[in-house]
Amino acid sequence: MSEEKRNILDTINSPDDLKKVPEDDLIQLCKELREKIIDECSEHPGHFGAGLGVVELTVALHYVFNAPYDNIVWDVGHQAYPHKILTGRRDNFSTNRQYKGLSGFPKRSESKYDAFGTGHSSTSISAALGMAVAAKMNGEEDRQSVAIIGDGAMTGGLAFEGLNNAGINNANLLVILNDNNMAIDPNVGGINEYLLDITTSKTYNKLKDDIWHILGRINKISPGARNFIQKIDNSIKSLMLRQSNLFEALGFRYFGPVDGHDVNHLIKVLRDLKDIKGPKLLHCITVKGKGFKQAEIDQTTWHAPGKFNKETGEIIKESKPNTPPKFQDVFGHTILELAHRNPKIVGITPAMPSGCSLNIMMKEMPDRCFDVGIAEQHAVTFSAGLAAQGHVPFCNIYSSFMQRAFDQVIHDVALQKLNVVFCLDRGGLVGADGATHHGTFDLASFRCIPNMTIASPLNEEELRNMMYTAQLPDRGPFSIRYPRGCGTMVEWRTPFKELTIGKGRCLIEGDDIAIISIGAIGNEALKAIQKTTGRSVAFYDMRFLKPLDEELLHGIFHKFKKIITLEDGTIVGGLGSAVVEFMADHGYSAKIVRLGIPDHFVEHGSQQQLYHECGYDCESILQTICSI
Amino acid sequence: MSEEKRNILDTINSPDDLKKVPEDDLIQLCKELREKIIDECSEHPGHFGAGLGVVELTVALHYVFNAPYDNIVWDVGHQAYPHKILTGRRDNFSTNRQYKGLSGFPKRSESKYDAFGTGHSSTSISAALGMAVAAKMNGEEDRQSVAIIGDGAMTGGLAFEGLNNAGINNANLLVILNDNNMAIDPNVGGINEYLLDITTSKTYNKLKDDIWHILGRINKISPGARNFIQKIDNSIKSLMLRQSNLFEALGFRYFGPVDGHDVNHLIKVLRDLKDIKGPKLLHCITVKGKGFKQAEIDQTTWHAPGKFNKETGEIIKESKPNTPPKFQDVFGHTILELAHRNPKIVGITPAMPSGCSLNIMMKEMPDRCFDVGIAEQHAVTFSAGLAAQGHVPFCNIYSSFMQRAFDQVIHDVALQKLNVVFCLDRGGLVGADGATHHGTFDLASFRCIPNMTIASPLNEEELRNMMYTAQLPDRGPFSIRYPRGCGTMVEWRTPFKELTIGKGRCLIEGDDIAIISIGAIGNEALKAIQKTTGRSVAFYDMRFLKPLDEELLHGIFHKFKKIITLEDGTIVGGLGSAVVEFMADHGYSAKIVRLGIPDHFVEHGSQQQLYHECGYDCESILQTICSI
Repeated sequence: MSEEKRNILDTINSPDDLKKVPEDDLIQLCKELREKIIDECSEHPGHFGAGLGVVELTVALHYVFNAPYDNIVWDVGHQAYPHKILTGRRDNFSTNRQYKGLSGFPKRSESKYDAFGTGHSSTSISAALGMAVAAKMNGEEDRQSVAIIGDGAMTGGLAFEGLNNAGINNANLLVILNDNNMAIDPNVGGINEYLLDITTSKTYNKLKDDIWHILGRINKISPGARNFIQKIDNSIKSLMLRQSNLFEALGFRYFGPVDGHDVNHLIKVLRDLKDIKGPKLLHCITVKGKGFKQAEIDQTTWHAPGKFNKETGEIIKESKPNTPPKFQDVFGHTILELAHRNPKIVGITPAMPSGCSLNIMMKEMPDRCFDVGIAEQHAVTFSAGLAAQGHVPFCNIYSSFMQRAFDQVIHDVALQKLNVVFCLDRGGLVGADGATHHGTFDLASFRCIPNMTIASPLNEEELRNMMYTAQLPDRGPFSIRYPRGCGTMVEWRTPFKELTIGKGRCLIEGDDIAIISIGAIGNEALKAIQKTTGRSVAFYDMRFLKPLDEELLHGIFHKFKKIITLEDGTIVGGLGSAVVEFMADHGYSAKIVRLGIPDHFVEHGSQQQLYHECGYDCESILQTICSI
Repeated sequence: MSEEKRNILDTINSPDDLKKVPEDDLIQLCKELREKIIDECSEHPGHFGAGLGVVELTVALHYVFNAPYDNIVWDVGHQAYPHKILTGRRDNFSTNRQYKGLSGFPKRSESKYDAFGTGHSSTSISAALGMAVAAKMNGEEDRQSVAIIGDGAMTGGLAFEGLNNAGINNANLLVILNDNNMAIDPNVGGINEYLLDITTSKTYNKLKDDIWHILGRINKISPGARNFIQKIDNSIKSLMLRQSNLFEALGFRYFGPVDGHDVNHLIKVLRDLKDIKGPKLLHCITVKGKGFKQAEIDQTTWHAPGKFNKETGEIIKESKPNTPPKFQDVFGHTILELAHRNPKIVGITPAMPSGCSLNIMMKEMPDRCFDVGIAEQHAVTFSAGLAAQGHVPFCNIYSSFMQRAFDQVIHDVALQKLNVVFCLDRGGLVGADGATHHGTFDLASFRCIPNMTIASPLNEEELRNMMYTAQLPDRGPFSIRYPRGCGTMVEWRTPFKELTIGKGRCLIEGDDIAIISIGAIGNEALKAIQKTTGRSVAFYDMRFLKPLDEELLHGIFHKFKKIITLEDGTIVGGLGSAVVEFMADHGYSAKIVRLGIPDHFVEHGSQQQLYHECGYDCESILQTICSI
């Protein structure tokens, strides 16, 4: 199907080619572009709904603006597929998100048209403002900087900081609010309700209509009334222009709302906006998944559906019966189970109820679950407030997004020894989402935080027991870190057991080499040990990175002169560092090989491909065992 | 002076005592409270202006609300002195900010009236919302949670995330916006202009008046006009109530502005607000430094003036001639000097132009300096945008506040190898500001970031050379970390010299022991070595934590069997860890003592007291030299 002839799209290898297409043909081009995305995503899983929603907007942007001279900055980047296809990456788009293939996000090193790399949310306004200010300082008056940001991403504090600062800079910045009422899950928060309010015309448009109506008939009413009406007219116009609107309150000129699927109208509007100096915001209404019926209806599922049949709209499930569950689902079912026992437990997620599976608890206990929007900082400090009143919040944040809340973890939770349980989902290499999404830094950065317990489960049973242990009274700040994807236990609903904090365990005895491991990556070592011949290899599952099981380590250093440390996290500062610090502090000596994520950014690929690249899949561990 | 009789204040040992004071006497109480703060701060330096600005507000809050049952959460905490004095800490307030004395910020472990500890900005709404939601879940309908936040702190993204989430929670939350038009320096940004706009009545109050005026006279005009006016009346009221206001757009009920120095009126307003459910915001206008003339006039200087003569208003300068300059001033003068040579250099600060001395450059080159408000995340991503267009931003952020931007440093700068220079001011123990402000974690947390160069100067000359080196072409992400306070060089305006990245140096040769140090704390070691007898101690200044000078380290490990590592940062994961990682990787063995900030939160005191407590002042190093 992907060899279908697309008469217009196939001629476009750059935005210059696009500009040669007559305006009348752009609707057809949008149709072809949409088909291309459907074809590609049905066979090569990726982010689907977001791109479909901005087909017309992307065409209009590249039609009107002159990238790369003009800077087009996509927020988050899920929606950048049409942009990539129009900017020279049409023919290799089938490598999207695959090992050594195109990145699923904009990436400066991939294309000069990707003005700013992304993956995390809410960065576009700040970055584009920086570019706009740079252009202004360079005297490039005509150079445009455009940030395209979703209403979901608008809930992130960074976006607000950008708006607030842009409002006083007279730089040439255009923010396009791509309002589809969704993050990955439905968008939440005051700003979302506010945008709905504008677009459903309840107040804003009604007043607008009323004013026009009155002004149209002003000549027909009495002079006395006209006097009063004219008197308030200026105030109302001033209010409408400057204060009726959240964005205008922050110093932006607000335009819209406009239909984000009318490509010709968008082009007209964008051309007009090009001539208006200073910070301006275009409010653009789009439908996530536009043009693919199932995706329009169930937008959360079709955010990133995996492979699907593009004719029937059936999602192709690849899971087999009797396979182990995803760690995410174990979290979701287990927090619900614990919440039934412990009425103080509450669940918090920053806009990831389906991704982290908190939605399992949400369905049954909506009042005890809080989706706070894309707002990791708030998620943590809000949890701290709950904990200060005796609740036990399970604050579930993806490891790489937790970087956003590093300060709040330190300042609001750890310093005050509050009982917040951090569930660090997607710790370690995550696969196809790549460099921006790998959970690389959590172990190393959390390890230096005082009062913080850091646990990481080998398997589902351990995750359950760590969650059980974390919610017992007065545990203080407690983090549990687990990877994206499936564990190893088909029968995972094991009874709860309290773990002793800071105690690891020996799972395989041995004489020659000790492997010291943290987390589910230990399963690669267990497989490697099974394949090992001629060497006696012991396996230690530390369970806790902090506090470190010093008793266990004394035993290991007394017995072994060859040690391998293993972690699915940066090799700088994590478990391996903790072990060598211990060795140095206690005057031991041993040959230590530290396995983990090396000190460079790792790109995308399957988790297994990346474990191999980083030297800690089963095969690599086996090699290390043989060579140490 | 501090033994003056204060007839009312002296009877108040708790908010219960305060509630017994007749309302008519509260103005006198405010006067006494203000005098007490002036007395104390003139002798024991602290944060001065902020507390004076909220005397009436604090009295009113404790008069109306029932702390600690009701939660009173102060944002940042600079303004909490009157709160502390009214809640049982009047008589030991003279120990404020001193070693083992009261903390300069609210602190849960210090008093049950301190509902939430703080020090960093913009946390109060999220924390108070957590408390309000907890109260709601507990069925405590009457329990109030109040966040008091300045307009400066309102520019932080976390505050916006909190507002956005609170707007959809029907919890009992009162946000008091303490609007004094200041952060430490004058407040900046769209929201600041907006608040000014409200309070100066330009639009909001004018329309309000016009509407009332029209409604008052509606009976006097013709029936035709009345018809039209009534038709738009609902729209306008609805607009006024729901959308005319930034905060109402986010789902809050907005009240104000009110005079924050009218204690009796404040009490009346707060009593009314107590009965209104759901999220509400009271906009309160105050004057920072109120009641002390000089502080009202020069609010930045009097934010934390040090000792002063309370009669004359003269600040008592303790600096002597021919003393070394502050690192901050060396930064300020040097960036200006470099900016004259390199037109691409720009300076960025999140609301700390005076604190970090960027104001020196600002005065001469206002167009190339950007105070972005309290918005560390934006400061970093904005810098990334500037760097993407070829500028060289020096982004100056205090080490402990940089925790706010950890993700942006990784995701927006390091991953894209952009040429941003991070100047990490106040790295290491900062002294009287205490646990929330120590720059503890930057070395360890930055060390695990790929592509990041980490430099730290021993003295002023080194700081200048590091800044010079960092702005040369294509240096990638480059951080320079230096402490609060003075260096060691009176003649510090040395000519610029490029440093080789990743190269350290031996400053003192020796035979028995090697001290490996990073940053200005090395001066303590240099002093200790001078006092050492009987042992030959070498001193190595690493200059760069990353990349590590492996050649130098090979030499050290070949020669020495006793090594001391020294850093003014967490002992977990920093220089000491890097050195033991190197030792393990290369099969060396040596006795290593790692000196640095231990794995617990360090409280306040003078820098020297704290270096001693942590075991790395001159004296402690000398002991280590003797005992290793």
